[in-house]
Amino acid sequence: MPLAAVMTAPHKPIEVHNLPAAKIEPGGVLLETIFSEVCGTDVHLHHGRLAGVPYPIIPGHVSVGRVIETGGAVSDVDGNPITVGSVVTFLDVHETCHACWYCLVAKASTRCPHRKVYGITYSASDGLLGGWCEHIYLKPKVKTILLPARVRPERLIAAGCGLPTAVHAIERAAIALGDIVAVQGSGPVGLNAAILALLSGAGGVIVIGDPANRLQAAKEYGVDEVISVAETTPAERADRVKALTGGRGADITIEATGAPAAVKEGVAMTRDGGRYVIVGQYTDAGEVSINPHTEINKKHLEIRGCWGSDFSHVYRMVNVLARHGDRVGWEKMISREYGLNEMNTALQDVAAGRVVKAVVRPKG
Amino acid sequence: MPLAAVMTAPHKPIEVHNLPAAKIEPGGVLLETIFSEVCGTDVHLHHGRLAGVPYPIIPGHVSVGRVIETGGAVSDVDGNPITVGSVVTFLDVHETCHACWYCLVAKASTRCPHRKVYGITYSASDGLLGGWCEHIYLKPKVKTILLPARVRPERLIAAGCGLPTAVHAIERAAIALGDIVAVQGSGPVGLNAAILALLSGAGGVIVIGDPANRLQAAKEYGVDEVISVAETTPAERADRVKALTGGRGADITIEATGAPAAVKEGVAMTRDGGRYVIVGQYTDAGEVSINPHTEINKKHLEIRGCWGSDFSHVYRMVNVLARHGDRVGWEKMISREYGLNEMNTALQDVAAGRVVKAVVRPKG
Amino acid sequence: MPLAAVMTAPHKPIEVHNLPAAKIEPGGVLLETIFSEVCGTDVHLHHGRLAGVPYPIIPGHVSVGRVIETGGAVSDVDGNPITVGSVVTFLDVHETCHACWYCLVAKASTRCPHRKVYGITYSASDGLLGGWCEHIYLKPKVKTILLPARVRPERLIAAGCGLPTAVHAIERAAIALGDIVAVQGSGPVGLNAAILALLSGAGGVIVIGDPANRLQAAKEYGVDEVISVAETTPAERADRVKALTGGRGADITIEATGAPAAVKEGVAMTRDGGRYVIVGQYTDAGEVSINPHTEINKKHLEIRGCWGSDFSHVYRMVNVLARHGDRVGWEKMISREYGLNEMNTALQDVAAGRVVKAVVRPKG
Amino acid sequence: MPLAAVMTAPHKPIEVHNLPAAKIEPGGVLLETIFSEVCGTDVHLHHGRLAGVPYPIIPGHVSVGRVIETGGAVSDVDGNPITVGSVVTFLDVHETCHACWYCLVAKASTRCPHRKVYGITYSASDGLLGGWCEHIYLKPKVKTILLPARVRPERLIAAGCGLPTAVHAIERAAIALGDIVAVQGSGPVGLNAAILALLSGAGGVIVIGDPANRLQAAKEYGVDEVISVAETTPAERADRVKALTGGRGADITIEATGAPAAVKEGVAMTRDGGRYVIVGQYTDAGEVSINPHTEINKKHLEIRGCWGSDFSHVYRMVNVLARHGDRVGWEKMISREYGLNEMNTALQDVAAGRVVKAVVRPKG
Repeated sequence: MPLAAVMTAPHKPIEVHNLPAAKIEPGGVLLETIFSEVCGTDVHLHHGRLAGVPYPIIPGHVSVGRVIETGGAVSDVDGNPITVGSVVTFLDVHETCHACWYCLVAKASTRCPHRKVYGITYSASDGLLGGWCEHIYLKPKVKTILLPARVRPERLIAAGCGLPTAVHAIERAAIALGDIVAVQGSGPVGLNAAILALLSGAGGVIVIGDPANRLQAAKEYGVDEVISVAETTPAERADRVKALTGGRGADITIEATGAPAAVKEGVAMTRDGGRYVIVGQYTDAGEVSINPHTEINKKHLEIRGCWGSDFSHVYRMVNVLARHGDRVGWEKMISREYGLNEMNTALQDVAAGRVVKAVVRPKG
Repeated sequence: MPLAAVMTAPHKPIEVHNLPAAKIEPGGVLLETIFSEVCGTDVHLHHGRLAGVPYPIIPGHVSVGRVIETGGAVSDVDGNPITVGSVVTFLDVHETCHACWYCLVAKASTRCPHRKVYGITYSASDGLLGGWCEHIYLKPKVKTILLPARVRPERLIAAGCGLPTAVHAIERAAIALGDIVAVQGSGPVGLNAAILALLSGAGGVIVIGDPANRLQAAKEYGVDEVISVAETTPAERADRVKALTGGRGADITIEATGAPAAVKEGVAMTRDGGRYVIVGQYTDAGEVSINPHTEINKKHLEIRGCWGSDFSHVYRMVNVLARHGDRVGWEKMISREYGLNEMNTALQDVAAGRVVKAVVRPKG
Repeated sequence: MPLAAVMTAPHKPIEVHNLPAAKIEPGGVLLETIFSEVCGTDVHLHHGRLAGVPYPIIPGHVSVGRVIETGGAVSDVDGNPITVGSVVTFLDVHETCHACWYCLVAKASTRCPHRKVYGITYSASDGLLGGWCEHIYLKPKVKTILLPARVRPERLIAAGCGLPTAVHAIERAAIALGDIVAVQGSGPVGLNAAILALLSGAGGVIVIGDPANRLQAAKEYGVDEVISVAETTPAERADRVKALTGGRGADITIEATGAPAAVKEGVAMTRDGGRYVIVGQYTDAGEVSINPHTEINKKHLEIRGCWGSDFSHVYRMVNVLARHGDRVGWEKMISREYGLNEMNTALQDVAAGRVVKAVVRPKG
Repeated sequence: MPLAAVMTAPHKPIEVHNLPAAKIEPGGVLLETIFSEVCGTDVHLHHGRLAGVPYPIIPGHVSVGRVIETGGAVSDVDGNPITVGSVVTFLDVHETCHACWYCLVAKASTRCPHRKVYGITYSASDGLLGGWCEHIYLKPKVKTILLPARVRPERLIAAGCGLPTAVHAIERAAIALGDIVAVQGSGPVGLNAAILALLSGAGGVIVIGDPANRLQAAKEYGVDEVISVAETTPAERADRVKALTGGRGADITIEATGAPAAVKEGVAMTRDGGRYVIVGQYTDAGEVSINPHTEINKKHLEIRGCWGSDFSHVYRMVNVLARHGDRVGWEKMISREYGLNEMNTALQDVAAGRVVKAVVRPKG
């Protein structure tokens, strides 16, 4: 009877429950959770900002665990066998149908209407389908990746769900060697986008965010400039980016804030003919006013929304962690580990931005 | 002393003046104007909506003429000699520098700050640098194209500046075979975008516009559906497009209206993961409110501003006219020809949408 | 006990057998075959040129049929119900796994090692899994498309497997408005590539092939120029293409011949900085010698291999047939219909190029 | 009367001559040469392998110098004034016309037929238009870049012409985060391509080359694996790359050898659906046999030739040197500096691969 931290309803305190053990189907995998995480999405879930969530739920969508049982022979996408003792991560998105128009014709699987997401769209009564739990049950066809030896669980969970999200955003950003990239936001997605921009050949990376501990983290990860939102006006920030780019603005700007007003500001700091990737607007926080002549048409601007992640993003994330992990040191992002009985504190710390990355360790 | 219709200042009546004959420099070409046009830009110029215009000006940016003198040997981009009697068109944009950061690094020559445009950014005192004149002087290095025999001057001017603009928009639209394309706007740019979408493999084209004569023209050019703006609400229009696309929305929407509100509406009629090209917002007509979560990020939408034209767009325009002109019959777009002394009427007709295409014939 | 024309082994005469009726699984669909086809692949199969084919097989990979039974409720990718009496086509490729590295990371599903193909990789003992049979059994998860009313079965089968192959090739070709496209080969793939190039905005299409009936068909479909292989040398053909393109060569060349020597010739007729799509080299017919300096590097050439089709190509094919079918008149491609007892003749006619498109009608 | 090392004819010893001083035109710039280089192209020039070279020439196409005179006010592409004492580099390619079909329609300026190249296509009698000279005369409109303070001349010349060539190749390679990149060749272009692949987010870089000193340099620059050509067969090399990539082959392979046989080998080490960039086939060294079925079509392979550099590549090169120079340490590539009277030795050392980078210092 594994313990889980259950979010019973929006705004209600998280409760620790004993839940029924998983029944392993053929092709299923049972994990002992090594780490899960608390991310901004969990705060949104706790505030009831996402539609259609089947509370009570076990939050925690990106996790890493050790296999304790499999339903017969199971292997990962590279053909590596997944056996008892294997340390794995997995794509939290499941049941992408590969049979609908979005999957097959548009080839936009992140818009497949059949997707389910561990820790978000499964109810606690559906099984152990979230990371804030001693066990995670990987249903058959959940896409797993055996962690390479050089990617320790701490490193993977420090990257957390922010890194595959950033991998997708960087794919949309299409950075050329020497491009100047501005990143709006210094939470996990913003920091990871900045790190990946540096790893992708940017000629300079500017992070606009707050609070000071996150900007400090950005500097330690090697970004060229940080701009504090608290200490500047929007006009000053756009001016600062322009001053750093010969008066033109960033070649590419990546939005990772969730604040609608950031979009207008981000456009202002992007050069004519540049590219603006919007990845942070994960919940509906209202509207923003845009001038389509001066801000899009005459600028010859390209704006790219970026929704969700698919397996390729998690796979590439693991490759990046394996190749660049020692130099980047993602694990420095972990501010604190929380036990299952500390999840209320964890949610408050994330909501307040007091931590860069909050990690859950279900087993003391 | 050629006659020209001169726009002396915003809101002032157009006046017909005798202007000094051109002095032909080496590499320059003097044309007898066969046709020029009146387009929406000329209405904007007359209303004073563009900044930095050096009134008095000779309007008319896209034109076709017969060579009456050249400054020595001149040839077009394909190496065809341009000699007395040749019928040519030319790129109205001149003095793109090929030396600045936008030209050389960004490769976004339509954002080159040194560009000059015939009929818009040259003063009447600079010379015969606009099409509403019996003569047009092509300065050295103006890029000309010898018209193929099968492209009669009527056909070229019927396409006018709307066609290269639409060629550029279609380039940004990147239509795949079978895509459903919605076009907002039924003026010359919108009609040409619809025609080119049909020629580019679209599986269906929907034009949303007005008035009835333009929608009728759209149908004659083969579009699958027209929707009258006067007879529908924005919600009805988006619903209609969705009903025509399996509930999903258009794969690609092209905005060619100039109205900021069209942008919100256009996003609503585009499918998740689709593409939205904004080409019609040529002047500053104010702002529009956008929800970056529901309208960009979660939609995984791509929005592409499209500014100006370069030589490739005019060159491809002529190829398209040569190959598809007989079938499409662009010359049907011409509603009326105007003499130089009728330009006030012409501007009113274009502003009121009473004509599809207003053509200027400087010589009776 | 449906009748089938069975290819028992390479080089052996086709035999007509009674085969056991299909057992309909949940999600399966049984079709009465309206039409199937004989294509170049069937000739290759009969000559034993493909590896790993589990003879005896029922050939016929692209087909159209009428539903006579379903295993419960079944719908197509657009959500249309597939019921008794529905007229459908389907993607011959089945069992693409959506779980391997090629499917999920490379997003190159046509390289998925788990693919099976109706009419090619299934044995006759596996069931009614080929089109040369009175019945076709669509296994669960086979991707179907309900034919729109305006796409009659004759039209679809006239397009046959050549059209989705050409849709894929055109996707790789990325034609811009006004581009000149050369197509090598005038079999079904070549003719369809030429038709689609015309529908995709090409400024001119040149078909190089033989025999005369196929070149005549190309002209009737509207191509600008045809060049007979029998009546010219390779150098003359390249010279002819250059003469038609200002001395530069085609912007894009599409190879649809299967002859290795065509590759060298195709490169020679493509302009510097152009694109060369190789889609016709379906079997191993040997090598060709290439000069990587003059023919690739200095030309700044892009060469794109194009393998197989996925569901999007069949879906777009049906859209194209629905939108442009009346104008193009694909059914003119059908040279002759064959009954199941005439398949030996059919194979000979296709091998000799005596027919443009050979169609199979299993029920007299 | 500046001294220059003049290549009077193929195979003749280099001679040091006094040449007439440059006459500075308006917009021209005279440099005192700080460094130039000896690259593989210079060896090709000395062996007479390039067509149309107007011997005698002053070799040396990429150089860095200090301004000693300007013809009036001159500025670089960013608007920085170029004045006496400025340290600059420049694009060796000059007279790209921006008026021909390749420049304007194809937007493939490296195929412009009017291009001239310092150190290659100018005769010594045309002026001081090569780097093996105490002075270099930059004609009006030569595109210059003011070196940022952090890019010391040693660093720029160590990168030499190999770096902009590699910037172009990497642009064509379009590396995604985590891709495995194989580089064939360990000369300056190959080493720079490997360095840039690492900086562009590759998940692993494999260099195949020789001799040992260059492979050692590759390892010091951080590549994951090196394979000696001398110690392996082609089959062993392809097998080794496959063993490092889960049996699939490299996602992207970049050819930088100049040997035709490398093309067949490079295709073999690239995965299905991968990309192969050919940048090293700078001179005609003969043909190679390719199987278009197994090596291109069925592989769904993309092959991209890559010719020349344009200004954006040099501009991005300087950005990369400024941003990543301290970490990469390009100057380690310099094996030896040569005076003008040592150029015969320098050519021999480069031809024999005894040096990684041979630098010319015209002033003792």
